[in-house]
Amino acid sequence: VSDGRAGPRAWVEIPPDSPFPIHNLPFGVGRRPDGTVGAFVAVGDHALDVDRGRSLLTGTAGEDGLLDATQKLNSFAAQGRRAHRAVRDRVGEVLTDPSRRDEVLPFLVPIEELTMTVPVTVGDYVDFYSSLHHATNLGRLFRPGGEPLLPNWRHLPVGYHGRSGTIVGDRSTIARPRGIRSVSGSPAAGPTTQLDIESEVGFVVGSGSIHGQRVPCAEAERHLFGVCLVNDWSARDIQAFEYQPLGPFLGKSFATSMSPWIVTLDALDPFRIAPPIQEPPVADYLTTTGPTGFDLHLEVFLQSASMRERGLDPILISAAGFADMYWTPAQQIAHMTVNGAHLRPGDLFASGTVSGPTPGSEGSLIELTSRGERPISLPDGSTRAFLDDGDTVVLRGWAGSDPADRIGLGSVSGTIGGSPDTGGLDTAPHDTAHHDTAHHHGRER
Amino acid sequence: VSDGRAGPRAWVEIPPDSPFPIHNLPFGVGRRPDGTVGAFVAVGDHALDVDRGRSLLTGTAGEDGLLDATQKLNSFAAQGRRAHRAVRDRVGEVLTDPSRRDEVLPFLVPIEELTMTVPVTVGDYVDFYSSLHHATNLGRLFRPGGEPLLPNWRHLPVGYHGRSGTIVGDRSTIARPRGIRSVSGSPAAGPTTQLDIESEVGFVVGSGSIHGQRVPCAEAERHLFGVCLVNDWSARDIQAFEYQPLGPFLGKSFATSMSPWIVTLDALDPFRIAPPIQEPPVADYLTTTGPTGFDLHLEVFLQSASMRERGLDPILISAAGFADMYWTPAQQIAHMTVNGAHLRPGDLFASGTVSGPTPGSEGSLIELTSRGERPISLPDGSTRAFLDDGDTVVLRGWAGSDPADRIGLGSVSGTIGGSPDTGGLDTAPHDTAHHDTAHHHGRER
Repeated sequence: VSDGRAGPRAWVEIPPDSPFPIHNLPFGVGRRPDGTVGAFVAVGDHALDVDRGRSLLTGTAGEDGLLDATQKLNSFAAQGRRAHRAVRDRVGEVLTDPSRRDEVLPFLVPIEELTMTVPVTVGDYVDFYSSLHHATNLGRLFRPGGEPLLPNWRHLPVGYHGRSGTIVGDRSTIARPRGIRSVSGSPAAGPTTQLDIESEVGFVVGSGSIHGQRVPCAEAERHLFGVCLVNDWSARDIQAFEYQPLGPFLGKSFATSMSPWIVTLDALDPFRIAPPIQEPPVADYLTTTGPTGFDLHLEVFLQSASMRERGLDPILISAAGFADMYWTPAQQIAHMTVNGAHLRPGDLFASGTVSGPTPGSEGSLIELTSRGERPISLPDGSTRAFLDDGDTVVLRGWAGSDPADRIGLGSVSGTIGGSPDTGGLDTAPHDTAHHDTAHHHGRER
Repeated sequence: VSDGRAGPRAWVEIPPDSPFPIHNLPFGVGRRPDGTVGAFVAVGDHALDVDRGRSLLTGTAGEDGLLDATQKLNSFAAQGRRAHRAVRDRVGEVLTDPSRRDEVLPFLVPIEELTMTVPVTVGDYVDFYSSLHHATNLGRLFRPGGEPLLPNWRHLPVGYHGRSGTIVGDRSTIARPRGIRSVSGSPAAGPTTQLDIESEVGFVVGSGSIHGQRVPCAEAERHLFGVCLVNDWSARDIQAFEYQPLGPFLGKSFATSMSPWIVTLDALDPFRIAPPIQEPPVADYLTTTGPTGFDLHLEVFLQSASMRERGLDPILISAAGFADMYWTPAQQIAHMTVNGAHLRPGDLFASGTVSGPTPGSEGSLIELTSRGERPISLPDGSTRAFLDDGDTVVLRGWAGSDPADRIGLGSVSGTIGGSPDTGGLDTAPHDTAHHDTAHHHGRER
């Protein structure tokens, strides 16, 4: 079975719609059925246990195993792109050489038997704000009547530091956060009634840089281990009340989901594109040449608890392209370090919400529903302005426009739990501004 | 020699003005003259090597050594206040029991022989904004004509996440950061011309909490390992251009200095005070009872390169009290976790700039000089609006008003280096808005 691209075929069967064809081979960390943790490379519906199967990696940077003492990939990430390439190339060799089948088979496990974990310990987590459409949409919603795009936006990739300690993995329960929101014009503490998602692309740092020395755009990608999906869960009401003048804090810090498989830039190389032309021209340190953008595509799916109970599949609520993101990861690295701040292996930075210019291409509910004015209808008969308890959100992403020739980023899901202090699914109050919608939800559950 | 308070005397000599009397006994990590790293407890001008001298700690949480595999105190911090108290009590015993002098002496080293390091690996670093005077002063400077205090300020402790990777220790060189500032109304990249300090108190997290569960005010201090000084270096011009709408980023992320000795809450217990009355009343989750404030005092000293060359001591440029900080560390923890975000051992959060109500009590240069309108005169004949290359800033802090009965936080210093890309001390351009001052600096150097 081939995956449509020229080159050696894998001897392992790979479903044609798999996000993990032989040209992908992303890295991850998973818990085995016996409870132990190992490093894996995904191929089709399987994962190669490169930890127990480290003998396959002799002569590469992976021959002593890819996990460090903390059972993460940070030390491997730190070894840089040449090391990642050597290991990935070797895995590609053993999976395409039929004569090695018997040697490799013992280390190939069905992905579904693994519980994937967050693959790195994230030191610093930075979230950018690099979609022109998203920044414009949010500017209109948060600052009605004002200029949606602030004066700095086209001059630098606006970003902020998020909380690295609350980065969670695939299939996590997201507790509904509490905090202070404005209720009928007065501040009041309670569970958020505007729980939202942000569909983003994440970049994991590989080799670090030196404190005090900036990383130029041209060298930036050398410091990347790979790419993943990020859901930057957001409580819009908490964020709106708190964010002046120091930016988002509790409205974001309760959880950030990260997909489990790190796709290397080598795998994404065929999908490079020139980024949009920037006008006005940017500062020298932000100037890039060549195809520093990536032709990635993102989708967001939503499934309510009652849909799950009735066996109804998640529905697609957003589909957006990454190709027209205004700022590229190379520029984000150059910016992040121009002041002398350094990169550490395992640092994560994310693109910011990926929104397109057309309805249905917005990467957050606040945009998709215009802060609840146009709720989304679900097949169980309910509607959504923001997330209800029990809702599951799945982000999915891939590179490439030809379905027969895609490199997948995989997916990451999260399910909204109740607000622990109130102890259940039915006690989250609904935003009074959306009473009708909220009431409708209530009847459906 | 006693330190003035009732209780057993130490048999080791302690200078009367030492920040580290026998009632203090803070924890730190230092590099020994032979290059190895150890955990230490400070007493007077000495430090007890509790790593090599772990035999002194038999029966306590420190008997296997206080350092973890990364040569930091995180694992010890994680063990909680009872463990810290047991070790500190034991150190107090052996230093006051004259019969143990010969046993202990081999592990007592002069502090000046050690190179102190950052004592913990900081996971998440949060910086608050909890001084009413500072927030008011900065609101006037950053938003002239507007209401200085934003509507959220009295309802919650405003804060943001800083960059944990660029936390540095005592006596660090701080490279002048580059970034984009508004120059004559147009954005331009270059070294900051408004390099500033922020004099703050830092709190290091001991035992962690659980993701999804808030920490109530009444339990918050259980999660504290101790207290230190923090200098949140700031590039005001970079910050002013970038900070809308997501808060400070490059204007802060280049470096944050942390003092080396972690003073326990037990040592600070005699200096507890009731915090200011909060009006309007705060939300239930922020309501505290009893003395959750601390009677701390902070000083800032400045010494130019030419002062250093001429043997002139640093001069005092700011003296402020921590007692009237509007928000307390217990409230900051309760707030930080009310959305379910958890604390990890070694996390650092800082109070925000400590500024008092009177001239000379402001904890930053932008306040002290009204953004350069009232420059500070130095004994070498120069003046300062913001920091020049070669300037050394020293923060100093202690608890207690009676000089004979103080518990010191020690000090932390940093010296401004050039901007690496321009390669030297003399090439940083000066803010055109302060040309006269800048020119004056130039002549003096």
